[in-house]
Amino acid sequence: MLARDLAQPFPVVRPDTNALAAARLLAEHRLPGLIVVDEADRPQTVLPGSQVLRFLLPAYVQRDPSLARAYDERTADRLGARLAEHTVRELLPRERATLPVVGGGATAVEVAAVMARLHSPVVAVLESDRLLGAITVSGLLTLLLPAA
Amino acid sequence: MLARDLAQPFPVVRPDTNALAAARLLAEHRLPGLIVVDEADRPQTVLPGSQVLRFLLPAYVQRDPSLARAYDERTADRLGARLAEHTVRELLPRERATLPVVGGGATAVEVAAVMARLHSPVVAVLESDRLLGAITVSGLLTLLLPAA
Repeated sequence: MLARDLAQPFPVVRPDTNALAAARLLAEHRLPGLIVVDEADRPQTVLPGSQVLRFLLPAYVQRDPSLARAYDERTADRLGARLAEHTVRELLPRERATLPVVGGGATAVEVAAVMARLHSPVVAVLESDRLLGAITVSGLLTLLLPAA
Repeated sequence: MLARDLAQPFPVVRPDTNALAAARLLAEHRLPGLIVVDEADRPQTVLPGSQVLRFLLPAYVQRDPSLARAYDERTADRLGARLAEHTVRELLPRERATLPVVGGGATAVEVAAVMARLHSPVVAVLESDRLLGAITVSGLLTLLLPAA
C-alpha cells in the first residue's frame, strides 16, 4: 500500500474561506484541525481548532484566561457569530504550523516514519504538487495492526 | 453548559494495558491519542498515536527515517504484531505530554480558554479527582457556533 492508496479525502479551506464556515467544517467532521490550501490546491498550513476557539474568545479572556469564569454564560453561544465577519487568514497563528507532507509513492513505513518524527496525527499526500488527501495516524494503524 | 455536561466518554488506557490493545483503540475510535489513567482513574498523560507508530518502526528506521523506503513492504503488516509483547508504559515518550484538565464546574468559555492557551484539541474533565470524560475542540465548537 502506497500513500496515494491510503489517502482519504480531508476537508480543506483557503485563506479567504469564511471563518464560520471553517469552524462548521471542524465541528461537523469532528476534526482537530483543517488543511489550508492555496488557489492551486497546494497545502500551505494547518488551522488548528484551538486557534478558532482562541479567535472567538473575548479579547479580555485571550489576554487573561483566568477571567473566563466571569464571562456571562448566557451569551456564550453568541461568541461563534463573531466568526462570520472574518476569514481563515485572520485566524491563522503568526507562527504557522508545518503540515507534514509525503508524495503519493511513499510507502506505509515511510508515512509512519514521518508521523513519528514530527509527532503528527495526520500527513498530507501530494501528487504533482496538489493535495490528494490525507492519512491519519488511526488510518495508518488500521493498516499496520494484525487482524484481531 | 458546564464541563460535566459537555464531557463525553473517551477511551482510556492504563500504563499496564497491552500496547496492541491500545493501538486497536486508537484505530477503531479514529483517535489521534488516548488518555492514560492510573489505577484510581486519575488522568496521568496522553499517549499520542504517533508515539505508537514510532514504537513499531524497526529500530534502524527510528534512528534514520530516510531508511524507511528500504523496508520491505510485504512485511510491513507484521510490524504491528510487535506491540502484543509490550505495554502502554513502554510506549510513552520520556517527555510525557501534559493533558489539559478542567473541573466539572468549568464553563464552556473557560474550557475554550484552556484549549486555546495550551493549543490542545482535547481537555479531560475531572470530578473529585476522577476522570469523567473529555471535551474535544469540535464538540465545543458545536456548542459555541450559531445554528446554521
